[in-house]
Amino acid sequence: MTIRLPGLADVHAHLRVPGGEHKEDFGSGTAAALAGGFTTVLAMPNTSPPLVTADLLRRVQQQANAEALCDVHLYAGASPAHTDELPALGRAAVALKIYLNETFGPLRVTDLSTLLACFRHWPIGKPIAMHAEGPGVAVGLGLAAAFGRPVHICHVSRASEIALIAAAKARGVPVTCEVTPHHLFLTQANVPRLGPLGDMRPPLAEPADVAALWAHIDTAIDCVATDHAPHTLAEKHSENPPPGVPGLETALPLMLTAVADGRLTLDRLVALLAQNPRRIFHLPEQPDTWVEIDPAASYQLSNEGLLTKCGWTPFAGMTVRGRVQRVVLRGKLVFEDGKVRSDRDVRQRHSQDKGGRS
Amino acid sequence: MTIRLPGLADVHAHLRVPGGEHKEDFGSGTAAALAGGFTTVLAMPNTSPPLVTADLLRRVQQQANAEALCDVHLYAGASPAHTDELPALGRAAVALKIYLNETFGPLRVTDLSTLLACFRHWPIGKPIAMHAEGPGVAVGLGLAAAFGRPVHICHVSRASEIALIAAAKARGVPVTCEVTPHHLFLTQANVPRLGPLGDMRPPLAEPADVAALWAHIDTAIDCVATDHAPHTLAEKHSENPPPGVPGLETALPLMLTAVADGRLTLDRLVALLAQNPRRIFHLPEQPDTWVEIDPAASYQLSNEGLLTKCGWTPFAGMTVRGRVQRVVLRGKLVFEDGKVRSDRDVRQRHSQDKGGRS
Repeated sequence: MTIRLPGLADVHAHLRVPGGEHKEDFGSGTAAALAGGFTTVLAMPNTSPPLVTADLLRRVQQQANAEALCDVHLYAGASPAHTDELPALGRAAVALKIYLNETFGPLRVTDLSTLLACFRHWPIGKPIAMHAEGPGVAVGLGLAAAFGRPVHICHVSRASEIALIAAAKARGVPVTCEVTPHHLFLTQANVPRLGPLGDMRPPLAEPADVAALWAHIDTAIDCVATDHAPHTLAEKHSENPPPGVPGLETALPLMLTAVADGRLTLDRLVALLAQNPRRIFHLPEQPDTWVEIDPAASYQLSNEGLLTKCGWTPFAGMTVRGRVQRVVLRGKLVFEDGKVRSDRDVRQRHSQDKGGRS
Repeated sequence: MTIRLPGLADVHAHLRVPGGEHKEDFGSGTAAALAGGFTTVLAMPNTSPPLVTADLLRRVQQQANAEALCDVHLYAGASPAHTDELPALGRAAVALKIYLNETFGPLRVTDLSTLLACFRHWPIGKPIAMHAEGPGVAVGLGLAAAFGRPVHICHVSRASEIALIAAAKARGVPVTCEVTPHHLFLTQANVPRLGPLGDMRPPLAEPADVAALWAHIDTAIDCVATDHAPHTLAEKHSENPPPGVPGLETALPLMLTAVADGRLTLDRLVALLAQNPRRIFHLPEQPDTWVEIDPAASYQLSNEGLLTKCGWTPFAGMTVRGRVQRVVLRGKLVFEDGKVRSDRDVRQRHSQDKGGRS
């Protein structure tokens, strides 16, 4: 049995270019995306260096266009030192990312003046996404209400956060939000088993938090996004493991399993993983693009055969129902039976392109 | 020349009862209030112990009723450990105070769950005031917008904060705010001279911040409140001086000086110091109550003759125009020519009342 879904869009992935290419690159990251049914990926700006100037962002976008196997759009990062770049960044980027809380990488905004500059100078037609935990969610809502412009809250993970967002939506505050599969399927109870492979920002929460997220899956939650954050196993098992877990290849099977278990409908899955992300982030259409899945296929998620460069998943060993069989992007078969089907040899092409092709 | 003003209301004072009676008490604090033209004082709950239970708050209110020379209403303090007290506290207190930022005393709320409990369970007809600096102002606005209930932002001190509040008001977010005289008349430039006597929370700001506050004095700013925070000179000159400065006796002369200098009208002064505080905090009327001032009197503020127990002011040496001559409270002359006129001997009455008069 085969079901055809639209190409999915992940609004939250770390593809690690530039500076973290040993963890992931545009080729390996978008191969993983296709394996997971995603034909559009929005890449985060907390790279090394971070994407805080329009010049750098344009160069990295050119590299993505050359190397990626599906469509990649880049976030700009908000930075107190570069608020004068906001208008130019706004022309080059798909959206602005503001980090209110500490996470991986150097980007963080803690002062109100920078927040005001972002809300005043970021183009009104482009979204502002915030890493905002706890009271930080209220910061995002306050700015959205004060400036009358939409805010997207990333990776909501706690009962109090989704309750506040639901209340704000009911009052007409222009807010949208995403949740990750790891916050929907894992809890703090999994941390002793997973060790550093269960560490990410926001951290895994309590069963009551997970229950609250599921209770809002048909209402206050707009998107499921992966927060795909690959690190090598060596890094994760080092003395100071960086936070973050990969997720591009496991999000759709996990969510299809939830459909099989009656936790949401397939229509809602498509809204969360395709329609809402494309609407909220004004993503361009991809004609003749679809994902073929076998919703009945039952198998164990595994570290074997992953296309992400980091080569592991915190969900290894979980039995899921639903497998990506084939992905067609703009009429072309780009993924089939676990393998990328591309006439591009990504790395070879990259070295050819060093001369300057955009 | 004499002008008659309505009795002023200070929505932000620390009267230090219980636990800090060596700094101030209800008798000395309200004597200072009358000397400053205030016939109503709202007292903050960061006492020792803090006012976080209804039982304690009622006992302290009884003490205030017995000892105070003018009307005193008490704030309840929000505390993660006492959210179950909120409905009972709401019946006993004039308003709820939430400390988002570190300041003097033990009260602080950093978790979203407690904030949500406050906004859900505090009586809708009673105000919620927040010590919220920087992005904390946006937290208050977000909660106000999400729950559709008014928030009062205490002692706004920076250009970015008042700009955000002005933007939020323009969008219909139910927010009000206060500024203090010290943030209107002093800057960081005064700190080398004042030393610890120039240290308070929020700290003194830059000239551009002060200019922004004055630019909003007729619009986004609703109240002038003292944040009267007495500490003894010995404490202020100790190794770890506590933040805070007294202000009840100097607020009105300073604001009258601003009127004399053409920075605001006398009508606006009355709105900021009497009408708006009474409206926002739903304070009971005080019939036959007024303050007589001589707007032409010019003199130097001084540490001599102050009625606050702490006996100093950060404004000592400043020349002001405008002196309180007389205060009449409910038809009775209670202050004249620098002295409290009361048939109460406050401390004697207090000892008589220990039997239980309310």
